Amino acid sequence: MTSVTAISSEFDQAIALEPDPAEPGCHLGELGEGWQIGGGINGGLLLAVAANALRQELPGHPDPLSISCYYLSASRPGPFSVRTETVRRGRSLATATASLHQWEADGSQVERLRVLASYGDLAALTGEVRTSAAAPELPPVEQCIGMEHAPPQLITQAALLERFDLRLDPATVGWAVGAPAGVGRIQGWFKLADGREPDPLSLLLAADALPPVTFDLGLPGWAPTIELTVHLRALPAPGRLRVSHATRNLAGGYFEEDCEIWDSTGRLVAQSRQLARAPRAQA
Amino acid sequence: MTSVTAISSEFDQAIALEPDPAEPGCHLGELGEGWQIGGGINGGLLLAVAANALRQELPGHPDPLSISCYYLSASRPGPFSVRTETVRRGRSLATATASLHQWEADGSQVERLRVLASYGDLAALTGEVRTSAAAPELPPVEQCIGMEHAPPQLITQAALLERFDLRLDPATVGWAVGAPAGVGRIQGWFKLADGREPDPLSLLLAADALPPVTFDLGLPGWAPTIELTVHLRALPAPGRLRVSHATRNLAGGYFEEDCEIWDSTGRLVAQSRQLARAPRAQA
Repeated sequence: MTSVTAISSEFDQAIALEPDPAEPGCHLGELGEGWQIGGGINGGLLLAVAANALRQELPGHPDPLSISCYYLSASRPGPFSVRTETVRRGRSLATATASLHQWEADGSQVERLRVLASYGDLAALTGEVRTSAAAPELPPVEQCIGMEHAPPQLITQAALLERFDLRLDPATVGWAVGAPAGVGRIQGWFKLADGREPDPLSLLLAADALPPVTFDLGLPGWAPTIELTVHLRALPAPGRLRVSHATRNLAGGYFEEDCEIWDSTGRLVAQSRQLARAPRAQA
Repeated sequence: MTSVTAISSEFDQAIALEPDPAEPGCHLGELGEGWQIGGGINGGLLLAVAANALRQELPGHPDPLSISCYYLSASRPGPFSVRTETVRRGRSLATATASLHQWEADGSQVERLRVLASYGDLAALTGEVRTSAAAPELPPVEQCIGMEHAPPQLITQAALLERFDLRLDPATVGWAVGAPAGVGRIQGWFKLADGREPDPLSLLLAADALPPVTFDLGLPGWAPTIELTVHLRALPAPGRLRVSHATRNLAGGYFEEDCEIWDSTGRLVAQSRQLARAPRAQA
């Protein structure tokens, strides 16, 4: 296990774990205040934490090819435990579950999320690629909108935004000045603010890093994730990622949010979908 | 519990369960030979079976709003058990897991799949709908291609196809006569052959009922599902469903398959995505 104090990247520090000496397959860590958004810890960071615990338990299968997370209650800064269970170990894939708990003031445990995932080795996959998907067309980074232009009331709710160097496509940030496009799409350039290069675990974070796509539909509230599944499709190359979020069906108080992440070589490295609760329309 | 002998629909009979008298939360049933495809039982049927077990355990939360299934080994006709665990019971959502097992000849148990899901009540959702997604444009049913036109070698591997009245868009069945379109899309009209009307559980079946979309890419082999997540977005109206399957990224031996299901009133009632292993290209 890596010692937390020796880690320079804030992301690696945030997902760092120590094995629980009292329980095999259980890992301990602490959620930092810097990863809060809208009163809880960001769902992508939590997924990366759980995925890191599973990686420790599945030697030879380092990467979540598919990982599904069901969110149960809002996580808070402070200590957590992640319990893991290996379901099946195969040759190319291993399947396992993880559950992340925190403690209430009275000492009782409360479960924050449950994860089910199949791990493999992205580096061992064949090279064949037949992609009809197209990377989002983005203006150059310097013409995109950084969070220094975000309304202050947004920033104060979102320490998380300081962890990212996020540059949004101006065509998809009308909502920041009261003029949402109404399309249901937000896209931009993503990297970690401290320059740490992308890897499979940080892609899980990137899949839930942009503002909720409902902002673009004129619904500015936070949108709690019910379920998030990420497929990692290739190891990402170093450099900035292109990330697009889109929804096509807001109905009955829920919406899906599809995310694609493209690396600096133009490779589609991750696809994700989440089901989230729609913010209530403002009066 | 409903008695199997009193059920007229073959789908309801296929997903029928009896509580295991020996273990609370456990249900028993039998997989029928008629649901086989490519040597195993269809993944959508298995998901519906597990979902039916969870429904028994979550009173007040009848419908899987989101359900994720990880497939572990090929299921065979014969007896099975489904063990369930309730993770969290909330006001509008309840989250639970299920695992389906069968028995080997030596009596040992082998797990076929693991499910994680959040259930709610589709009938209780608000009526607001903002859908930018468009239903697939399909020729009238009588101009679509039924399985009576499928090559006999396909039918013999797939007793499953006799359970469906599936009418595929001629533009997406070139593969059946050796001329795949190469687009990565298959779409058509779906109903159960015995006329049973759609409901949330049969939508889970419909999400994995079409031939693998890789047929349209000129890859005719079977494509084992690694993971399948379905979001049920509305209660379906009676009548034929429109179902579309598409992939945008076949890479490294895997592909995603996105499915949309539209009911007879033109409502988007389910969205699903699976990660599947690509068939090997033929020499």
